[in-house]
Amino acid sequence: MPNPTAAMLVIGDEILSGRTRDANMHFLAGELTRHGVTLAEVRVVLDDADAIIAALRELSARFDTVFTSGGIGPTHDDITADAVAAAFGLSIDVRDDARALLQAHYDVTGREMNEARLRMARIPDGARLIENPVSVAPGFTVENVHVMAGVPSVFQAMVASVLPHVTGGAPLLSQSVPVFRGEGDIAGPLGALAAEFEDVSFGSYPFDRNGVFGANVVVRGTDHARVNLAVSRLATLFPQRDA
Amino acid sequence: MPNPTAAMLVIGDEILSGRTRDANMHFLAGELTRHGVTLAEVRVVLDDADAIIAALRELSARFDTVFTSGGIGPTHDDITADAVAAAFGLSIDVRDDARALLQAHYDVTGREMNEARLRMARIPDGARLIENPVSVAPGFTVENVHVMAGVPSVFQAMVASVLPHVTGGAPLLSQSVPVFRGEGDIAGPLGALAAEFEDVSFGSYPFDRNGVFGANVVVRGTDHARVNLAVSRLATLFPQRDA
Repeated sequence: MPNPTAAMLVIGDEILSGRTRDANMHFLAGELTRHGVTLAEVRVVLDDADAIIAALRELSARFDTVFTSGGIGPTHDDITADAVAAAFGLSIDVRDDARALLQAHYDVTGREMNEARLRMARIPDGARLIENPVSVAPGFTVENVHVMAGVPSVFQAMVASVLPHVTGGAPLLSQSVPVFRGEGDIAGPLGALAAEFEDVSFGSYPFDRNGVFGANVVVRGTDHARVNLAVSRLATLFPQRDA
Repeated sequence: MPNPTAAMLVIGDEILSGRTRDANMHFLAGELTRHGVTLAEVRVVLDDADAIIAALRELSARFDTVFTSGGIGPTHDDITADAVAAAFGLSIDVRDDARALLQAHYDVTGREMNEARLRMARIPDGARLIENPVSVAPGFTVENVHVMAGVPSVFQAMVASVLPHVTGGAPLLSQSVPVFRGEGDIAGPLGALAAEFEDVSFGSYPFDRNGVFGANVVVRGTDHARVNLAVSRLATLFPQRDA
């Protein structure tokens, strides 16, 4: 049985303008791979309600789980929660449980609750809250969509809260074999090997190490014995120069 | 008139598995912003023909220009050229001009042309070649889609070849103003200012510098005077503590 699938929706003008380099995609990709979930697609969209709503609807219909990052802070450009509510036809308002979390935090830190901070307690009807151990303002889950913050430390903490509740499959095992030959020399025999091992995937990633050309061939699969067999076949096909 | 729009399609299992951290999206985002093109969406998909074809068709219909990265090397997992041909209903085969470029390169470097390397000369009918000054194997342009390599040094060189032919608008100007107050305190006045300046966008990006909380407010627009006016209004709203 193939592993469950996931998609990620990154929301934020700052990524698409080049101001900020996204870090959450790479983090989530690694976590999902270890958890046995295939990250099948990532989209990055602007802070635009129509774009967010359309992407949410399509991704949540096509994949088992969707993770979003960004747009749940207190400022006017934080429109993710309202877009999620609109995408699923839910009402949204300040919710008492979320407001209580924030109020307790502000009471301790001596900050005032105001209209902007109250925006972070706007949660779609029926959503489950996602704990935020870093800065308290919660994420939330609606149907198969987990809505999380864009700040990497908060995103990572929320992924840790959510992942135990996401059904995983067999973790993807991966072994990398460096081959010191041009990718054009590797490709033929590698393609034949890949055709023979249908349950294992072979990726070829060329490198140039100070003028020494080659490729890392990455063997991936969920069956330990098959991955090992494929790696030993690779070693026979492409003997190491200095072995 | 709003700036021209673009989308990017990143093709590669290695990004979605977390093995490789994509570098091309951040690079392209910065280049397009400087060129006056709005990068409106990025998608990352697996090495899967159906996924690539569907994304190409949708993005090329919705945006002025599409840039792809990845999947044009010599190995069995390099399926982008065939997917592009299928998406636009074009035939594809080894093309003499592309083959000649590769042959000349292999003649100099003493490598043999073989079936795998010939794959890199497979170019859809009617496509224009994109020069690759790094490793010769060309990219190509079909309709409004520029198909480029995933290796960052090659991708960057191909962007440099292509960008002069892409219609740009007014470059997006950007100024960043650090505000040493909690984002929840900034949000109210900032939202009011944003409502007043409809031709300028205001983004708020919280930071925590060793326990000093604040946010960088980024003002973006294409009119220099308006951006400057917005920045001076921001400075009045949020005086610097140590000024």
